[in-house]
Amino acid sequence: MLDHLKAAFNPQGVAVVGASNDIQKFGGIFTESLKSAHFAHIYPVNPKEREIMGLQAYPSVKDIPGPCDYAIISVPAEKIPNVIKDCAVKGVKTVSIFTAGFGESGGKEGKRKEKEIVEVAHQGNIRVIGPNCLGAFCPEVGLTPFLASGGSGGFGFISQSGGHMEEFCRLGKKYGIGMSKGVSYGNASDLDSTDFIEYLEEDPQTKVIGLYIEGVKEGSRFLKVVRRASSKKPIIIWKGGTTEAGTRAAASHTGSLTGSQVIWDSLFKQTGAIKVNDLTELLDTALAFLYLPLLKGKNVALIGAGGGASVSGVDDVERSRLTVPPFSPPMREELEGLIPPLGTSMRNPVDLSYFLMLDPGLMVKTVNLAARDPRIDSLIVFYWPDSVVPAFYAASQVVEGIGKELEIIQGVFKKPLIAVLYESTSGEDEQHLFGKIPVYPTVARAARALFNLAARSEYLQRFSDRVKFEI
Amino acid sequence: MLDHLKAAFNPQGVAVVGASNDIQKFGGIFTESLKSAHFAHIYPVNPKEREIMGLQAYPSVKDIPGPCDYAIISVPAEKIPNVIKDCAVKGVKTVSIFTAGFGESGGKEGKRKEKEIVEVAHQGNIRVIGPNCLGAFCPEVGLTPFLASGGSGGFGFISQSGGHMEEFCRLGKKYGIGMSKGVSYGNASDLDSTDFIEYLEEDPQTKVIGLYIEGVKEGSRFLKVVRRASSKKPIIIWKGGTTEAGTRAAASHTGSLTGSQVIWDSLFKQTGAIKVNDLTELLDTALAFLYLPLLKGKNVALIGAGGGASVSGVDDVERSRLTVPPFSPPMREELEGLIPPLGTSMRNPVDLSYFLMLDPGLMVKTVNLAARDPRIDSLIVFYWPDSVVPAFYAASQVVEGIGKELEIIQGVFKKPLIAVLYESTSGEDEQHLFGKIPVYPTVARAARALFNLAARSEYLQRFSDRVKFEI
Repeated sequence: MLDHLKAAFNPQGVAVVGASNDIQKFGGIFTESLKSAHFAHIYPVNPKEREIMGLQAYPSVKDIPGPCDYAIISVPAEKIPNVIKDCAVKGVKTVSIFTAGFGESGGKEGKRKEKEIVEVAHQGNIRVIGPNCLGAFCPEVGLTPFLASGGSGGFGFISQSGGHMEEFCRLGKKYGIGMSKGVSYGNASDLDSTDFIEYLEEDPQTKVIGLYIEGVKEGSRFLKVVRRASSKKPIIIWKGGTTEAGTRAAASHTGSLTGSQVIWDSLFKQTGAIKVNDLTELLDTALAFLYLPLLKGKNVALIGAGGGASVSGVDDVERSRLTVPPFSPPMREELEGLIPPLGTSMRNPVDLSYFLMLDPGLMVKTVNLAARDPRIDSLIVFYWPDSVVPAFYAASQVVEGIGKELEIIQGVFKKPLIAVLYESTSGEDEQHLFGKIPVYPTVARAARALFNLAARSEYLQRFSDRVKFEI
Repeated sequence: MLDHLKAAFNPQGVAVVGASNDIQKFGGIFTESLKSAHFAHIYPVNPKEREIMGLQAYPSVKDIPGPCDYAIISVPAEKIPNVIKDCAVKGVKTVSIFTAGFGESGGKEGKRKEKEIVEVAHQGNIRVIGPNCLGAFCPEVGLTPFLASGGSGGFGFISQSGGHMEEFCRLGKKYGIGMSKGVSYGNASDLDSTDFIEYLEEDPQTKVIGLYIEGVKEGSRFLKVVRRASSKKPIIIWKGGTTEAGTRAAASHTGSLTGSQVIWDSLFKQTGAIKVNDLTELLDTALAFLYLPLLKGKNVALIGAGGGASVSGVDDVERSRLTVPPFSPPMREELEGLIPPLGTSMRNPVDLSYFLMLDPGLMVKTVNLAARDPRIDSLIVFYWPDSVVPAFYAASQVVEGIGKELEIIQGVFKKPLIAVLYESTSGEDEQHLFGKIPVYPTVARAARALFNLAARSEYLQRFSDRVKFEI
């Protein structure tokens, strides 16, 4: 099994079966994508072409000259069994099948065809990803079979949906989340999410594992593997098909039986896997796990400027099941020495009011004090990049200056520190990282990510006697 | 009272007391803001200056030559009573006090000073907005006392927080939400939210009323007025200070007693006011109310491309307490005639898969069919502006073309139609309107706004025998 997965995620050569010179066909997109990502050994396969996207084309997989252990197949369903037989002759270890119209179509015929393909594959010692999927990704080696691919990094993404994988790749780049390995695995006729988790669990490049999953074939094995992997690395699961209509849609998308909500809730409790509801929360949470230290507790300090923003910010934090406690008395006293009383508040939330405009350094001093308070486990600071600031300073100056200082403070106190840059009209809110400080566009999103971080910390503390963890 | 509010929202002349040539002082910001919005009659008041921001300055409000019925006061607290006496001599009807450090400071002294100011004002037939606020806004006449002001439009915003008002002004512009009138009213020592609601209830420019509110002075009058106004116009309430720490923060921000969650929940039920949790939801909901017809029921059609996106989109819709029912059989049959079966789904959600790339017109045809289905009350269509589309068409072309068609369909069927442009890396997701079709960045946000629209529709239907409504 390990050999088969290694062949998929770090192949010596990739055959694109059904490759095309037409960029509006998927066989063209796959070839062009691998080429533009500079994957070293691409072998377009198409009996009608001699050259595809400037690369030599081969009539069959059997004709490929160099080593080739992975094939992306995008040909009509009826041709697939023969393609797989050719792959077996060539020594391909794993194929990913893009072609749709199998188990997800609702008919028995689709399921039967799926089964036939897997049987043919197993006879040739080949494992199957899909059908109805994009297959494996490893940006580090240029294995990015689809147009939009993000950079290389510590996040391993296992997605039953190709569309969500694609969207992740594009947004991941924007958010500063690079991918170690990824896979879009569609109908899971053979290899399932559990197999990929097992691989990423041991993959040294993968620091955080994320899943978009509609259904699971072997429930108890999945539970066992998620529990074990989760003791080593954070596992974030976005479960699709959790509502009635969602279940119906999942059946028609990947032919999945989605499982009841009760079973999934119990799985999250037993494994410590983090439940998220959408791609935004998946990305926000991944950002927190990738860049922040773990939490000791749920007490948050909220520091910013603006009375209304402090009130609603605190509401957002507490609605996320975290707490904003008053500071300890000595800390409060020190703050009172630092901040003028008029129009400000020092109780936590700290409202620096317009004094922050007059002296941007006040934020750093306040954060430094608050981080020292033993009552405080994590800090959220918020900014309005194009508020009244422009009358005083360029927002980008403030933001850059403070980013570095926050990073230093986080390094000293080992408490998670998150920044919020509220949605702006200038585009400066597009930033998702100050160095190693995650940046979110609202306190609500920051708090949700922080809660997920706290949930994992709690889980690990509960099991710390028996679990050795890496992050 | 009407006279006083008219003086605030549509003044004949505005005195800026404490005006300054220094743009880093608030007296400078107020003057500059009014000037750059071309307000017709600005009277800077400062005994030490002869000219402020290029305008003639006056030593006292009494020295202002023309009519002046509204004053923005930004001088130290101890000087305010005398300023108000001058205002009374001049015939000013309403003042807004920016100065902070009153009831919100926690001491008895602050409350006492607040009371004193109101007494002095009432003796001079003057009503007070604030203290600790930005006062009245009416972009139509250039009454925009703070730097960032949005355009003119149908949304009336009553905000206890100046920061939230400012943020609304900036984001409103981006979202396509213009302001009819607005007010930041701070500590509400005299005029309270209830007074402003009564004014906007009758204001013909105001189509939708939004509130950010921390506390209310006269609870039963507030309830009565909200209930009456809500029968005429949608009222969206963002209540700050709903959590324990939020309550503490609100006390220190505007000196408000926030009231228990139970009381507020009961108010929402009794009045049909729409509850939102943050500024994003406030803006999203305002957009829906401003542009969409009301709903007959909660059945949504979800149409887009992408299997995973369909599954999670439907989850998002149903999590928002709306329903995605299967289409009626004749409709299903017609759809099957329109869309090729391979890789698509026609059950609702409709997944047009990559056929949408080959023929963007397919979306319009599908929406046209779905809108005719009597089972369907509203429609959400979703797009990935920088997905694989660029290989086929420029996203902006598709998006513009489809926007016009959707508007026509909405006009014919009178069913709310919402578009979703998923977050992109190209910036095309910044769009918030296709003509009159609201655009959201996720299905989750679209569904939340649609649920709020449905909640109001239900409320109005329940009371339709006794309520005549305008929208």
